[in-house]
Order: sequence, then structure tokens, then C-alpha cells
Amino acid sequence: MFNLPHPESYRDQLRAFLREDWGTQDWTTGSVRDRPMRGAIKAKSLLVLAGLPMAMEVLRIVDERVKATPWQEDGSIVQPGSVVLALEGPSRSILMAERVMLNLLQRLSGTATLTGMFVEMIEGTGAKILDTRKTTPGLKLLEKYAVRCGGGFNHRLTLGDGVLLKENHIAAADSLRNAVESARRMSPSLIRIEVEVERLDQLAQCLELPDVDGVLLDNMDLESMFAAVEMRNTSGRRLFLEASGNITLESARAIAETGVDFLSVGALTHSAPAADLSLRLET
Amino acid sequence: MFNLPHPESYRDQLRAFLREDWGTQDWTTGSVRDRPMRGAIKAKSLLVLAGLPMAMEVLRIVDERVKATPWQEDGSIVQPGSVVLALEGPSRSILMAERVMLNLLQRLSGTATLTGMFVEMIEGTGAKILDTRKTTPGLKLLEKYAVRCGGGFNHRLTLGDGVLLKENHIAAADSLRNAVESARRMSPSLIRIEVEVERLDQLAQCLELPDVDGVLLDNMDLESMFAAVEMRNTSGRRLFLEASGNITLESARAIAETGVDFLSVGALTHSAPAADLSLRLET
Amino acid sequence: MFNLPHPESYRDQLRAFLREDWGTQDWTTGSVRDRPMRGAIKAKSLLVLAGLPMAMEVLRIVDERVKATPWQEDGSIVQPGSVVLALEGPSRSILMAERVMLNLLQRLSGTATLTGMFVEMIEGTGAKILDTRKTTPGLKLLEKYAVRCGGGFNHRLTLGDGVLLKENHIAAADSLRNAVESARRMSPSLIRIEVEVERLDQLAQCLELPDVDGVLLDNMDLESMFAAVEMRNTSGRRLFLEASGNITLESARAIAETGVDFLSVGALTHSAPAADLSLRLET
Amino acid sequence: MFNLPHPESYRDQLRAFLREDWGTQDWTTGSVRDRPMRGAIKAKSLLVLAGLPMAMEVLRIVDERVKATPWQEDGSIVQPGSVVLALEGPSRSILMAERVMLNLLQRLSGTATLTGMFVEMIEGTGAKILDTRKTTPGLKLLEKYAVRCGGGFNHRLTLGDGVLLKENHIAAADSLRNAVESARRMSPSLIRIEVEVERLDQLAQCLELPDVDGVLLDNMDLESMFAAVEMRNTSGRRLFLEASGNITLESARAIAETGVDFLSVGALTHSAPAADLSLRLET
Amino acid sequence: MFNLPHPESYRDQLRAFLREDWGTQDWTTGSVRDRPMRGAIKAKSLLVLAGLPMAMEVLRIVDERVKATPWQEDGSIVQPGSVVLALEGPSRSILMAERVMLNLLQRLSGTATLTGMFVEMIEGTGAKILDTRKTTPGLKLLEKYAVRCGGGFNHRLTLGDGVLLKENHIAAADSLRNAVESARRMSPSLIRIEVEVERLDQLAQCLELPDVDGVLLDNMDLESMFAAVEMRNTSGRRLFLEASGNITLESARAIAETGVDFLSVGALTHSAPAADLSLRLET
Amino acid sequence: MFNLPHPESYRDQLRAFLREDWGTQDWTTGSVRDRPMRGAIKAKSLLVLAGLPMAMEVLRIVDERVKATPWQEDGSIVQPGSVVLALEGPSRSILMAERVMLNLLQRLSGTATLTGMFVEMIEGTGAKILDTRKTTPGLKLLEKYAVRCGGGFNHRLTLGDGVLLKENHIAAADSLRNAVESARRMSPSLIRIEVEVERLDQLAQCLELPDVDGVLLDNMDLESMFAAVEMRNTSGRRLFLEASGNITLESARAIAETGVDFLSVGALTHSAPAADLSLRLET
Repeated sequence: MFNLPHPESYRDQLRAFLREDWGTQDWTTGSVRDRPMRGAIKAKSLLVLAGLPMAMEVLRIVDERVKATPWQEDGSIVQPGSVVLALEGPSRSILMAERVMLNLLQRLSGTATLTGMFVEMIEGTGAKILDTRKTTPGLKLLEKYAVRCGGGFNHRLTLGDGVLLKENHIAAADSLRNAVESARRMSPSLIRIEVEVERLDQLAQCLELPDVDGVLLDNMDLESMFAAVEMRNTSGRRLFLEASGNITLESARAIAETGVDFLSVGALTHSAPAADLSLRLET
Repeated sequence: MFNLPHPESYRDQLRAFLREDWGTQDWTTGSVRDRPMRGAIKAKSLLVLAGLPMAMEVLRIVDERVKATPWQEDGSIVQPGSVVLALEGPSRSILMAERVMLNLLQRLSGTATLTGMFVEMIEGTGAKILDTRKTTPGLKLLEKYAVRCGGGFNHRLTLGDGVLLKENHIAAADSLRNAVESARRMSPSLIRIEVEVERLDQLAQCLELPDVDGVLLDNMDLESMFAAVEMRNTSGRRLFLEASGNITLESARAIAETGVDFLSVGALTHSAPAADLSLRLET
Repeated sequence: MFNLPHPESYRDQLRAFLREDWGTQDWTTGSVRDRPMRGAIKAKSLLVLAGLPMAMEVLRIVDERVKATPWQEDGSIVQPGSVVLALEGPSRSILMAERVMLNLLQRLSGTATLTGMFVEMIEGTGAKILDTRKTTPGLKLLEKYAVRCGGGFNHRLTLGDGVLLKENHIAAADSLRNAVESARRMSPSLIRIEVEVERLDQLAQCLELPDVDGVLLDNMDLESMFAAVEMRNTSGRRLFLEASGNITLESARAIAETGVDFLSVGALTHSAPAADLSLRLET
Repeated sequence: MFNLPHPESYRDQLRAFLREDWGTQDWTTGSVRDRPMRGAIKAKSLLVLAGLPMAMEVLRIVDERVKATPWQEDGSIVQPGSVVLALEGPSRSILMAERVMLNLLQRLSGTATLTGMFVEMIEGTGAKILDTRKTTPGLKLLEKYAVRCGGGFNHRLTLGDGVLLKENHIAAADSLRNAVESARRMSPSLIRIEVEVERLDQLAQCLELPDVDGVLLDNMDLESMFAAVEMRNTSGRRLFLEASGNITLESARAIAETGVDFLSVGALTHSAPAADLSLRLET
Repeated sequence: MFNLPHPESYRDQLRAFLREDWGTQDWTTGSVRDRPMRGAIKAKSLLVLAGLPMAMEVLRIVDERVKATPWQEDGSIVQPGSVVLALEGPSRSILMAERVMLNLLQRLSGTATLTGMFVEMIEGTGAKILDTRKTTPGLKLLEKYAVRCGGGFNHRLTLGDGVLLKENHIAAADSLRNAVESARRMSPSLIRIEVEVERLDQLAQCLELPDVDGVLLDNMDLESMFAAVEMRNTSGRRLFLEASGNITLESARAIAETGVDFLSVGALTHSAPAADLSLRLET
Repeated sequence: MFNLPHPESYRDQLRAFLREDWGTQDWTTGSVRDRPMRGAIKAKSLLVLAGLPMAMEVLRIVDERVKATPWQEDGSIVQPGSVVLALEGPSRSILMAERVMLNLLQRLSGTATLTGMFVEMIEGTGAKILDTRKTTPGLKLLEKYAVRCGGGFNHRLTLGDGVLLKENHIAAADSLRNAVESARRMSPSLIRIEVEVERLDQLAQCLELPDVDGVLLDNMDLESMFAAVEMRNTSGRRLFLEASGNITLESARAIAETGVDFLSVGALTHSAPAADLSLRLET
């Protein structure tokens, strides 16, 4: 649905997360009797869910005997108090998986929830919410997935799947034209080239370079963005426009209404507060 | 100063973070000329710095020739606009290290800054701010360090360096006494035992068990916490009291003034917004 | 020059290659005296060089004291008998590095040499030689680099940096339009979409879909390719055309002269014979 | 049959090959519907099959639900057009495994096929085809297996499972006798010692040293090889003789007829063209 | 029972042990027919068993089809000649797992057996046997488990789960009080602090510092230990006393009878002779 | 001298050993001041040294600034009280490396010392001491080196560098001749074949098979071993004889005097008590 990554791509990380959480050994759980247990992960606040397949994979790594029944799916809006995942199995295994499952669900759902709020803010404008490379080190693949669960879109995931020429690159190439042509010549044929601009005259230059696939409007005011959209539309070029620079829930709609194609929001991955979920056990 | 982890403990992770950010190859940087460059990482908001040694290690991994001069040190309160780290070296190397350095600094300083705010809130009360196991998967060691940079203290880092008996463990052991004695018998001799309680009668039980080293007061109201401190103080037992449960900047001081020893705050590591830092280059 | 990958991206692999070659321990070298030695890696056939920085990194891993002086650089056409790299250092270290260095140089130069032959064949036509995903498992990054050393260009390196819709994908999406729109909606914004077609009517469809960035002409005859180029040119669309399907040194020029933009050649990476290089030591 | 390596010895590599091929994520496959699919891997040229168990393991890693039915086995001579492996399962999983499966089968069958051609060339002579250490970095274990599938034999796999003294080692030890005795003293007791010689007088020396188990005749002409065999046969020593040095399909039989025991052929692993196999899907 | 570590914590190590034992490939087993086989691992001397779950996990890694039936459990005293584990399955798989299974069982049972002998020596005294950090590099988790199987207790497993201040640390902190207070301030809240002393006046100091949780009596004579216990008992402090320094089976009981809480014995993990077990196969 | 393994072969293991010892973080060392320190590793008992290069590599990993001066070399007989390695550098680094250095030196020197005692026992007989595959899981490469330091010789290191046919293999092949011929046909050409026998008639069979390179005499009495040597000597075959089966320091000489070539001793690696070494620091 949201282009779920293959478990092979992240299973080793989940294993590392468990070992990080356990340290040498879980003495607390090990000191009490193992017994059959039921439990449920519930939402404690309104949230957009993300990370359920990963949480279930964590459980499978810890103990394949734990039966996990999803009551929701990633991308759903979940009401406070709703059960997200029902669990049944040996108590030790559930307790040893608990913290890593919740840490993942809380973080990924946090990103999905914030993304969903941005998406809702700009609904009907035709613009889309993009993420950035400002992700948590080590969690990029999963956070990019969480953005998709929230209704957002991914910008490049790595420096290997997209070219974004900034001021520095252009300076080093002596001219915008040189930079763009060099990038096109040097890069794999299925990768696009985007150029970051701060002024409209720079955009004008881009519109004349056929190899530019998109332009990032860096910290422009609304008026300039309107003008940029107008320039692009009258140019006959299909290149996309991306607004960027401290975009907030408050400012998003006005920016989207300028007609830009994308709004990129670093906060989705660097500052989303954790969604609130917890595990309740019954015996 | 803040008990810096040995680089050997996190260097492989930094390398993985770089590879995660680069993907197959950095086509943008590779398509323009390499040249000598100067730059500086600056704070763009008021923050408590954390992560500078890790950011410098990232640079060393990318290119040992880049000269990095710290203008601040971890734990410092940094004013907006202040230079944190001055850089000089080949442009490609600086650009390839930039994002990972900033992502680390922003996240760790975010945690240190929020910790610092909590610490300031309870200044003079004698209580201390503790973190929790609600850390970012994969970043526990560094986030725990960031908490220390912000003036906070670490609760256990893993399930291997502390016993915390919760309701479930106690139920599985049939009685609190059994659970505590079993934990003491099963666990390494240098690890402490803490018990989570929700009511004062449970605390009373703990005060009678010599193997209990600390008690976590789960979601108690202020009045109960005052009573708990009073019970502990009159008992002659040296066991510590830790307040826990959605403690906010607003509620922290009143809780600290009840006389508890610790306030544990999950938000330090799961919901701290990124501190704002950026890299400016000059050519 | 040819967008050299960062050593951090392949150093661990080189280390694994050495360990694979050594097995438990090099008994032969260990049984004789270590002594200072000079030597040279020489070409024994005409070749386009690729892999010199990797070979030198192998030496550094084995022993930083070995002095290696390059006499050629990657991308150069090297005459039989020419020295490629002069070496001076402890004999044991040179002998323990020898085989892995040569295996890498022979394979990568083999690919660069074959690429160079294809590039020469189509010189002046304006078309470019592309590689494919038919690479040696484990060596993709280095082989893609070798293609660039030989004057070729890279198609996508992985499934993550480009979309290529084939018959099967289109069938699963019920229509070409659906497949393309879905891919555009699902994929990161800096990735292009290419469609594989076998007939001209399929190309005609592609020319009407603005999200198609390129078309792969699968096993078409020359006449169809001419027609395809004509259709594209008169359509006003900037989409690129890639010829594919058992292209040989014999058939390449005629294909290039049809006006297609790219010729993709699987043999560059799956069937290039090793270039002939050897290490001569003097004592 | 051909001494199949244990999957534990190469499974992690197969996983790395998949991740190398996928990059961050397979956007193409992810953008279309998953559905049940049948398909078959077929030979498109005459070949000796090698790598089927590895290809099937790749499938298992991607998705255990895919049913794979082998129609041939490793070591078989497969006619063009013959089905090698029939597949049935979810389309996404088959498409995500396809390229790595084929890249492995093509390369390993390429080596097996070339080996088979050499073996056929010398049939009836009593001589055997040997491989060398000139393998693809990272693929040694599998390529050595492919050589066996083609009817060839393995020389040492690593520097740890055999001693081969060359000119340089002998020079460092001051004399052949010293080199051989030192190697015998220094090496594990179940490892053999082979000496590389370029002249018959060197062979004569070897025949007098009881610790020499075999002699490599480096680049000798046919006449010398005949003489070498004669010398060995009349000496009463059981040591084996191995011919080496640019042996081709054309020259192999004459060399084998000199009576040497082994012909070692680097091209088996460094220059075998890929065998042609492809995956056809039906829906 | 003895707080078994989760297999996820050591499975990768077992896999590495197998690969270490196999080298490139098991030629011996590969050269003979695979066939169904039964066998049994038997004790050849009196021993306390440890490592059975790990040995069974080794088998599962090699071949899930091998049926393994435990006749004993870890911690049991096993008579010479008794079957420990019955096996039934393909001969190759059993033979390829054999050596690693036995090496683990022999070593871990060796430690458990020696531990059991120490425990028996001090039975009834109320004292406990502790291990140390003098473990086999790479096997700490399993050896610590073996100590528990033998009836012993674990001291800290790593430098991360306990503070032990020695002479050097105290000297660096200028005073014992400083060292203890600094350690308490710097360390996670659930970790205890132990101080190593050589003289009774140092113990007296410790008894006045509330943050000292235990004292290690380093190489004291029996008389001093008696005095130390007396001092502790009359102090009203609950801190534990640990005797340390070349404690042997001969000296253990007298030390235990001084009233110390723990006797720590490095030999448990650094010098326990292997327990004697072997695998017998029937066909 | 003793065929030192290349550091690249074991450095990652040393790093893992350090991380295993540190756990999350070294709180003790981190809580006190870092300062310059001198120290020395001394022998506390008579020992044959092994592991010094590994111990020094551990130090380099922890801190390259620590100056380490060896006063002895591996293979030396060291008197109690002698300095083995002098150290000078930051106290924290020395303390964080201490335990792993000592654990390695104690274990490897323990093996070297026991080997040396066996070697001394059979001095002058012409026989040699061999090790077995009964090594500590994870430490095989280093323990095999320690055996060489003690004057012993290595049997095969792994199943990949030698064939040893036991009863089971022979049974599976229906006859000894079949087993040997199959092994010769299936195994790399530089690997030897050894056959384990329990009776002299089995040895007689071996003497008739030219592909048998050595025979292991399993648990034979002295008389049979004498007879075996006699049979071998009069047969004209050069095959080696290895005595095996619970050989002790007491029984070794008599066995060696039977004229066998090798005595293999499992205890060298599975039951050698740790040599006694310690680190003394001065400030």
C-alpha cells in the first residue's frame, strides 16, 4: 500500500535494536516465571499508524510462538484507546520485545502523524508534502516509509538516487549551465537533476536548461513563489517546483496555494514528537 | 567531562550512517570540481551542545585532511549565531560529511537542550533528571550521553545493567517478596533492584525488603509523592525514590519539591525537537 | 575524473577479498624470510585501465609501509609491457596483496577495455554506451565505475535509483497509463521512469504520457529503431531512447546511427574477458 | 555430487547480493499490484549448469512461499530452450529475486561450461583440469564449486590450504632445499607442498627432495613437458606434475598428451563468458 | 532455570564458530555418502552439564532435520557414561556440527564442573561463589551462564554494569570519598559501587560512605577477613564483602567461614579443564 | 618466527573482545581523572610467552598514544617476575585495554607453556607435538599460533585444509579404498589425506593405498605403535604416523620413543591452565 520495504532490508537492524536494548542479558524477566500472557498495544492519543509490520517482525525475531493479531494497519488514523495489535504468548518473550516494538511504533507513527497533519493542511491545493535527508541516522528507510504512511512523498533517499545542485556546487562549476551539464554527464541515466535557487533570475536560467528536472525554491517569500510558478507555467517547461525552508503547519497552506508542486518539511523526520502507544498485559 | 563513550564503541555506527546517507554514490558532489573550502557549523537557536566529538569523528572517517576546530564543547549553552565548529579542507569531503554531522548534532543537542530545560526547572530542589529506555533505536549510547551533556542522569542503559520489577513481574512471582528475592538471586552482584509501585502500601512493602534499592512511583499525584518521601525518610532505609509518568516542564518543579530523588522523563529521548544548526561554507 | 567512489564505500569489501584469498593463513609466504623488494604491475595486453585506486587501497590495508607509485591512471589506454604501478616494500606484504590486486585490476580493466571498444565503435554518432544490472554479484559499485573509466555511462545502479517498467509490471497495472502514474506516485521525486517497449505502438502510447522520461526499445530491428527515433523527434517530447538486446561490437554502430540516445550492453559486466596484467618482482 | 558447499557458508553473501541489487528499495515492483505468477528460468544457449542450489536459496531468502521446481541439476548439460527451474508464487517476490538469481546462474554456468569444454578436449588422456586463484573477488567458494560442476578439479582454494613455492620464495630462502624444508616445518601437517619450476634442472632438484608433493611446470614447451614426465616417471617419486601458463582450448590436448597430471587454466574463473539464461513469466 | 540467555544473543557467534571450524569447505564429509545416522553425546567423566541449549542450536543451524533429544539438562550432575543428547539425522550434518558442539559443551561444562566443586566446598557457610572478568575473549556471555549452571553467581559481566574502584582509580581521584562520590554522580542509577581494599582501615573508610555498596577484600589473610566481617556487622551497614585473590578448592572453605558474602574465583573461567564428552555414532 | 598471522586476520576480533568487555560504557574509569601513567605487564609464574603482538594491537585499538615497549618476545621462556611489556600513556586507555590484553596473554601463554612442556618431554626423539581441532570456539587462529610459539606443530586448522577419514566416513564409503579414492578425487589437489585406524590390519591396508599421506593411530598401546612404525618403515612408504588419544605429560616420551612422527594432544588447547600475568601501574 505504502510501498513497504522488504523485511530483508531492515531485519538485521531490528535484531541490532533488540541487542542494544537487552545489553548482556535481561535479568528482570529472567528472574521470574515464564507464563502464557495476553496483551494489547493501544494508542493513547490520536495518531496515524506507521511501523506495524516492523513491530511484528521484532516479535517474530524474539519468539515465533507469540501470536500477534493486527487490529489496524499502517496509514490508518487511530483513535485514542484503540487496540493496534493484540498479542498472545509467553510472557518473557512479550516483555523482551515490548520496548523495541513501542520505540519503533511511537517514532514512526510520530512522523506519520505529523506528515498527516501537513497533508491535511494543504488538502485540495494539488501540492504534495515531501520529506528531506534530515532523518534520524540509522532509520532513514523506515522514516521514509512512515512519511508515505502519513500521505507524504519521498524526496531522494540518498545521495545516490538524485542530484540536487546547491550554491556551492554551482560555484565550483563556475556556472549553472556547467554544473547541470556536468551532473547530467556524470550521473546514472535514470536520476533527475534538481537545482536550488534563492532568486527568480536563477529560476529563469534553469528554465532554459533542458536537463533541469526540478527547482527548489529556498526560503522564498509567498510573492516570489507565486511569481516562480507563473514563470514556470508560461515557460512551457514541465520542471517541478519545490518550496523549502522552515515550513510550518501554519505557513503550509498559503505556500501550497502559490501553485508549487511540493513543500519539503524537515521537521517530519527531525522533530516529530513520539506518538503515544503503550502495551497493556493481562494474565 | 560527561563520560564520553570511547570512539571504538560508536565508530562503526557512524560509518553505517554515512553509507546510509550516500547510497550507492554521491553523484552531485562527484560532478563538480573538488577545491579547498572553509566553513563553519553554527547554532541557529539557543541550545545545549551535544555530539561534537561524534561529528568530528564523522569528518575524520570521510577525510582525515579536513581540519576541524571546535569553538564550543559539549555541555555548553550556545547562543544563536555562534560558531560551534570551524572547518577547512577539500569541498567534496566536507559536503559528503555535512548531512550526517548535522543530523547527529541536531538530534543530540535537541536532547541535551530539553534535558537542560528540565534541569533548570528543578534547580535547587536536590532532585535529579533521569532518562528512560524510550530512546531512538540504534542511538541509545549517544542519546544517553546527550542526556548527561544536558545535566541529566542515566537510568539503566539496557536490561542488562539494572533490574526494574513491574506489576507483571511481581504477578508472575506471586508476591513482591518472591520477585525481589528471586531477582537478587538471579542477577549479577553489582546490579541494583528497583520496584515500580502505584500505591503507598506497595511502597511500605518495599521498605521492608532489604534487597530493594529504589522505588519508582508510577503516575502518583503530588500528595502521594509527599507521603512516599515521608514514609521513606522515617523508615531509616536509604532506598531512592523516582517519580515517573508524563512529567512535563510545567509539572517538574512541583514534583521535585516533594523530595523525590529522581524525575524520569521519556520525552528527553523520544520527543525532543531537533536543535537548529547549519553549515555555512565560504570559498 | 570518472566519479571515483569514496574508499569508505568499498574498503570493507577489499578486506573481505583479502581474507577470502588468504584463508586461515599464508603458509608459503610465512615460511620464507621477509626482505625489501621492488616490483611492478605491468600490462601484458593493450587495455583501458580501471581499478588502480582500489588496488592501491588493497596494498594499504596489507601494509602501509609499501610504497606504491602509479605510472598510469584509470581510464588511460595502456600499451602491452607498460608499467602500471611500481612497488617497493617488504616482500611478504607485496606477495600477500598480489593476487587480490591483480584479480581486481584484471576484471575491472577487462570491463573498461570492452566498454572502450564499444565507445570507439560508435564514435561520432552522438549515442552513448550504457551498462545494465547484469553485474557480478558483490562488485556492482566497482564494475559501474569501470564502465565509466571505459567511457561508458551508467544506467541505474540499483532498483532504488530508477524505475523501469517492463511487460510484467504493465500487465499487473492493467494499462501502461496506470503503471506509469502509479510509479510516479509511489517513487521518490528525483527518480526517472523508463518504459520497456517491443513495438512502435507502445512507444506512441509512451509519448502521450508526460511522466515517461525514457523508453527502452527491446530487441527492435534497425528499421523500427529508425522509426522510433523519428516518432520521438516529431513528438516534441524530450524523452530518451535506449536500444537494448544482445548488442555486439559488430552491430553497435548501425544501431547508434539510428539516432537512439543510448545502447545498453550487458556483456560489459557479464562477459568481458580479464585484461592481462602481472606482477614482476626484482630483489 | 560435486561437493556442494553448506548454505551457511554462502547465505550471508546471497543476502548481500540482494541488498546490493535493490539499493534502498525496489520502486518499480512496489508500484504495481502483487499477484500470483508462474515462470521458468530457461537456458538460451548450450551450457553446463552450475548454481541452481544458490539460485533457489536466493528465492527462499526473498520469499519462502515461492515454489521452485528444478528441472535440471548442477553438472547437467542443458540444451538451449530447456527449462532449468520452474517458479510459482507472488509476482513481486519473483521479480525482486530475478536479477540476482540470473546473475549467479549465468556466471557460474559460464565457468562450468568453459570447464566442461576443457575437460572434453583432454578426454581419455588421464589428465585433469585444475582451476587457479584467479577468481572473482568475493565469489571464490562458488566459482570453485562451478569448476567441479564442469568436471574440473580444484587447486588450493586459499593460501591457507596449500603451499606453492615460486621463484621469489626460493630466492628468499637462498636455496630450493631450504625453502621446501622451511615450508614443511612451518605449515600444518595435512597441507602439501608444490614447487613452481621453469627448467628441467629445477625439476631434477625437486625429485630429490622428499617433501615436494608436486611440481608446477611454468610455461614450458611441449618437448620440455614430455621430458619432465619422463624424468618423474623414471625417478620412482610419486609427485604430481601440473602444466600452467596460458593454456587454451586449442593447446590443451597436446599438453595433456605429454603425460602431465594436471592442466591449470586461469580463464575458467577470470574470463568465462556468461552462460545465457533468462526468466520468462506467464500470468 | 539458570537464566538462559536469549538465542538471539549468541546465534551469530555459533554461526561464526561453525565457519571457523569448516574453513572453506569440509572435504572429508563431502567425499562420502550422506546417510541416516543415530548417535549420542555421552559424558566420559563426572561433570556438571552446561551448554546443551547452545549445542542444540548449533545443530539447528547446520540442519533443522537432525532430531536432537536431550537426556539431561544444564546444571545436572552427569555420571560418566551417561547419554547427554541423542541424535538422529543425516550423517553429514551431524559430522559437520560435531566438533563445535563438543568444543562448546566441554568448555562450558568444564567451567560448570569446577564451579560446582567450589560451591560444594563452601556448602552451608552461606557464602557464594562469584566469577570474574577473567573470561575467554568472545565467550563471556556463555561462560557466565556456565558459572550459574554450576551454582555460582555472576559478578558484573562488563564494565558497563557495575563500578569497581581499585587503587588506581582512587589515586586518580585524590581520595576514596571523591572517587566514590564521582562514580555515583557519573554512573547510571541502577548500578552499584564496589571498592577494592587491601587493609582494614580502608574498609573503615568505606563503611562511612553511604554510596559504597560492597567491598572487595583483596588478598587478605583469614584473620583480616574475620576482622572485616566483624567491622561490617557492627557498623550497621548492609554493604557486602567479597574475598578475592587466588582462592583455591583447598582454601575456599576457611575463607567462606570467615563470614564474607562472596568468594570470587578467576579460575572458574580462565583455568577450568575441559569436561570430557564425546559423540558416538551408530549406523 | 612462528608464522605470525596478519593483524588483518584478527583485528576485528580484538575489537569485538574489547566491546564485549566494556559493555555499554566503562563507568569506573570514566568517573575519575585521566592522567599520564606508567605500567608493566609481568609474568607471575614461569611461562612460555604467546600473544604479545595481539596484546599490543589491543592497545593500539584503544589508544594509539600509549607507548608499549616489549621486553620479551613470543616463544621466549619468561621467568616469574620478569617484565613482558612496559607501558606509558593515558591512564584511562591503559585501564580500558588491561583486561582484554591480560585475558589474551594468559590464555595463549597457557597453551604455549603446556605445549613447551610436552615438547621438552619428547626432546631428542625426533617426534613432534601436534594440536587438534579441540580449540576454543572463536580463538582457533590464535591458539594454533600459540601452539607454534610453544614449539608444537599444527595439524589441519579447519575441515578445509586436510582430509581425515574416520571410521564413520569409511563405513559410509563401504571400503577404505573407496573412501580414500573418493576423498582424493573430491578434494583440492594440495590437501593431504590421513586415515584414522585402531588396528594394525587397517594400517596394512593404508600402506597399500598410494593416496594415503598419513595414518592416525587411535588409542593404540605402545606395543602396537612400535609394530606400526616397523610396518611403515619396512613398507617403503613415506606416509607419516600420528599417535592420538589422551596423551599426557607422563605418557608422552614413551609414545614418542616408539618412532611415531607426531603426538597429537587435545589438552594443549582445551585444558591448558591460564599462565599468570598481571599489570602493575605506577603513577
